[in-house]
Amino acid sequence: MPKAQAIIDCDVHNTYRSQTELYPYLAEPWLTRLKEKGFGYPLETFYSNVHAKRLDAKPENGPAGSDYGLMKTQLLDKLPIDYVVLTGEGISGLSYMPDAEYPAALASAYNQYLVEEWLSKDERFLGSLHLAIQHPEAAAAEIYRWGSHPKVVQVSIPAATTLPLAHPFYRPILRAAAEMDLVVALHFRQPGPSAPDMTPVGMPFNYLDYHTLVSLPYQAQLVMLVSSGVFEELPNLKVMMMEGGFIWAIHLMWRFDKDYKALHRLAPALRKLPSEYILQHFMFGVQPIYEPREASKLQDVIEAGGLQHNLVFGSDYPHWDADEPDFIRRYLPTAWDSGIFYDNAASWFKSFKHPA
Amino acid sequence: MPKAQAIIDCDVHNTYRSQTELYPYLAEPWLTRLKEKGFGYPLETFYSNVHAKRLDAKPENGPAGSDYGLMKTQLLDKLPIDYVVLTGEGISGLSYMPDAEYPAALASAYNQYLVEEWLSKDERFLGSLHLAIQHPEAAAAEIYRWGSHPKVVQVSIPAATTLPLAHPFYRPILRAAAEMDLVVALHFRQPGPSAPDMTPVGMPFNYLDYHTLVSLPYQAQLVMLVSSGVFEELPNLKVMMMEGGFIWAIHLMWRFDKDYKALHRLAPALRKLPSEYILQHFMFGVQPIYEPREASKLQDVIEAGGLQHNLVFGSDYPHWDADEPDFIRRYLPTAWDSGIFYDNAASWFKSFKHPA
Repeated sequence: MPKAQAIIDCDVHNTYRSQTELYPYLAEPWLTRLKEKGFGYPLETFYSNVHAKRLDAKPENGPAGSDYGLMKTQLLDKLPIDYVVLTGEGISGLSYMPDAEYPAALASAYNQYLVEEWLSKDERFLGSLHLAIQHPEAAAAEIYRWGSHPKVVQVSIPAATTLPLAHPFYRPILRAAAEMDLVVALHFRQPGPSAPDMTPVGMPFNYLDYHTLVSLPYQAQLVMLVSSGVFEELPNLKVMMMEGGFIWAIHLMWRFDKDYKALHRLAPALRKLPSEYILQHFMFGVQPIYEPREASKLQDVIEAGGLQHNLVFGSDYPHWDADEPDFIRRYLPTAWDSGIFYDNAASWFKSFKHPA
Repeated sequence: MPKAQAIIDCDVHNTYRSQTELYPYLAEPWLTRLKEKGFGYPLETFYSNVHAKRLDAKPENGPAGSDYGLMKTQLLDKLPIDYVVLTGEGISGLSYMPDAEYPAALASAYNQYLVEEWLSKDERFLGSLHLAIQHPEAAAAEIYRWGSHPKVVQVSIPAATTLPLAHPFYRPILRAAAEMDLVVALHFRQPGPSAPDMTPVGMPFNYLDYHTLVSLPYQAQLVMLVSSGVFEELPNLKVMMMEGGFIWAIHLMWRFDKDYKALHRLAPALRKLPSEYILQHFMFGVQPIYEPREASKLQDVIEAGGLQHNLVFGSDYPHWDADEPDFIRRYLPTAWDSGIFYDNAASWFKSFKHPA
């Protein structure tokens, strides 16, 4: 019998059982504020009628993703999974809070909680730092604080940001991530009070529109990051785009290269074609997997666009649209298994390059 | 020798030699305002260092696109072209003016000018109405006023709108267009003072970013139009998306269908899969044509996505990135010539369905 394909799951949403689990890691005045006012933003979608998480993943005493035992049964041991990147849950909304110091303190508390109460629990766990990106200085400090922990592999940033990620405002965050060899992972996040609209023509009307259109901020980030020249400034910067699809990247590579030929003097820092930066500095999560009527069409499109080496697996457990590896395999060729399920991610995460 | 392929060019930017050409069609107080203050928004890109129009298309006494003789020499007689849809130029910025009555008056003046001074000039000309979409009532009135003119085939709307086009605010415009059998053509437009940002994370930093990212508002419009159910309400509504590419539509069709299967109760007006509405109600301009290193890859992607019957040709003359048919043909198979250059557009424009 052939050895089963080893799997790195790049997207598993762990969370705390209740906010009380963060109390030991918070100083005043933030502790009192959390106790009295909570996070101050909704943790569930404001669109009605949708359960964003698997109902069967909810333990009795907390939200889905908060119970290690259940995660072990439903995911880690079941599939099985060799490594899991814990990407957090509602905590990511703190980048959409109007103030800066409180969410920075919450991020700091969460990161310590992550290291002490999750990463220590299971050898398969890898960590994703959360940041209050509206406070770049504090965010960078978090990266330097935890970046050399052998199991911390990335920072998690919402795909939709108030300014483009390529803006100098965020450069301290990108610089710290590149220096500490952490991947910058962009996730589709529940909008909070200070979140930008998800599309250039305003907020989607419902969760169907919203979920179908989540790639728009990723597309904007990718183009502006490349043309800004940040990958020349920070050659070690690596961006993983989760949950937003990837066929659109073929559209962008071909259009960007064409436009660059005519307009290259507008991006003077570049030394090669935009598509070369994209293929070198971006990976894309395959979940939620596209489901064309004829499964082979997906392979056709990916191969034509040359994206097959830029795909990584993330299950998105315990969200409603989570994909298990065998479901992904229905739409992608067996020959890509090792790349998508292990090698592509392992080539990026520092824990695999420099094992502890 | 085989008969040359007949060509409908769906995107040629005509314009007036100077604003004085609109004076005969304007009443007070708008005439004085135009004389004294002009349009009140920039007609050229605010990003520096870019000539948005072919330098050789500029006549001595006006901007590129204002001279019928030059358009005849450089485009109509040269290629030759059988039909041209005149899509206007800076006038489209009027949807991005902060007020409503003045741009509505300008739109009305332009439409009369178009009919009297362009459509009468050459049998090959077809017309695209301009509208101040921030004034839906006046915009609908313009559609009813000119919609039965045998050579008026469409209305031109900027791709990026303040609210989604699917919003009830714009329904009078869509209803009028469907009733008068006019195509709704979305164009990439120069932003004006009240234009929304081009991306969900803010304005692109330069014209390279901007030009590479123009598809974002088209993507949002397409998804929200479909899920709103407007194509059930207005089965004759047809949307042509020019200059924004189309590979992203494959991403959206596959993702939208998948999401719809789980979330269909959020779009209760739909009677079939989202991709079926997309293939029935949307056409995409092939200019600027994608230029993958291996030309055949473009065909591979289009066929995998099933978009080959939804493409139309528009040269975008006299813009800098205009494509002539032979350049398009380098990247697309000969078998698609009749569809892309003639049949697909002819099946939608009323002038071909009911010749005068």
